[in-house]
Amino acid sequence: MPKRVDRNERRALIADALMRVAAARGLDEASLRHVAAEAGVSSGMVQHYFSTKDEMMRFALEVVRDHASERLAVAAAALDQPPTPRTLVRTLLVHLLPLDEPQRADGRVALAFLAYAAVRPDLAASLRTDNARLRAFFAEQINAQFDVTGNPRSVEPSHAATALLALVEGLGIYLLNGHLPAESALAIIDTQLGLLFDPA
Amino acid sequence: MPKRVDRNERRALIADALMRVAAARGLDEASLRHVAAEAGVSSGMVQHYFSTKDEMMRFALEVVRDHASERLAVAAAALDQPPTPRTLVRTLLVHLLPLDEPQRADGRVALAFLAYAAVRPDLAASLRTDNARLRAFFAEQINAQFDVTGNPRSVEPSHAATALLALVEGLGIYLLNGHLPAESALAIIDTQLGLLFDPA
Repeated sequence: MPKRVDRNERRALIADALMRVAAARGLDEASLRHVAAEAGVSSGMVQHYFSTKDEMMRFALEVVRDHASERLAVAAAALDQPPTPRTLVRTLLVHLLPLDEPQRADGRVALAFLAYAAVRPDLAASLRTDNARLRAFFAEQINAQFDVTGNPRSVEPSHAATALLALVEGLGIYLLNGHLPAESALAIIDTQLGLLFDPA
Repeated sequence: MPKRVDRNERRALIADALMRVAAARGLDEASLRHVAAEAGVSSGMVQHYFSTKDEMMRFALEVVRDHASERLAVAAAALDQPPTPRTLVRTLLVHLLPLDEPQRADGRVALAFLAYAAVRPDLAASLRTDNARLRAFFAEQINAQFDVTGNPRSVEPSHAATALLALVEGLGIYLLNGHLPAESALAIIDTQLGLLFDPA
């Protein structure tokens, strides 16, 4: 009896190969052939998972998303339960920053996807749903924190949430391009949380 | 006598063609051949300006930088002179956002360059110098504003400058990918300036 093909295992194998190729030469240079060679499978097998460049880009983004969800879930679970909304917000923001090498590799892939999607409106649409969900979650947490401590400077929670996430996006790019050290990014996040939450 | 070749004119012609190709299909897909066809010149002529992909990317970024410098200079000159540091900071931040189509096209090129440079450390180095200069300029202006109004929440000017520029970088990405309308981006910048500068 032939060995049963485990689709998830093979998908993981190809995903890992794609991410290694993307980390080494950039996602824009990752070709079917390179990924197949890196995974030690045929080009046909890789093509089974993504037959066009768009599909390969989506696939890579999905992998990055899975990594991020897992990382955020682990970080949130490690907090004293239940965490204050402010602690939860800070923890999630910090874990969205590319502070170690695996996260930097993911960050470079995410950045390549953003650039790719910026000229392909249908791909950008899939980012929008995720982003709206993330911003709504942060807005809820900020609102909950204001219920506890008040809203010292009357900031609209949805604006505060978008500002925090856009700030982390920008700081992530600065970190990927070596514009500033990790400590500065962390200090800036704490300053921002202080401006939002600390009593006037 | 043969017509004197105006290097600057030809460079501008090729730069415009490169930017049109990049806007239509993405900078990662812009090839020598496409750019030459768009400019109506030979591939050899285009190659005179950039012989490698890296050089083409640098060239594109230079064009985007020139556009941005010009835009910021015009916006600053249009203010009542001398502007308050806060007004100058707000004006420059707003003019860094991709709010109209020419700026969106430039923003997409800049984003493609960021993604490309994130896997090529020597290219990232050229971004670093520019970014450090911009952050230092903003920090000076913020410091000058604190001299006028006080520093209501004791924020380190260099952190405030980095936070504002990273925020604009993130909001720029959100605008390029249609995550939020222009009014929200502007409202968020005003909220942020209020947090920094308004009396407690």
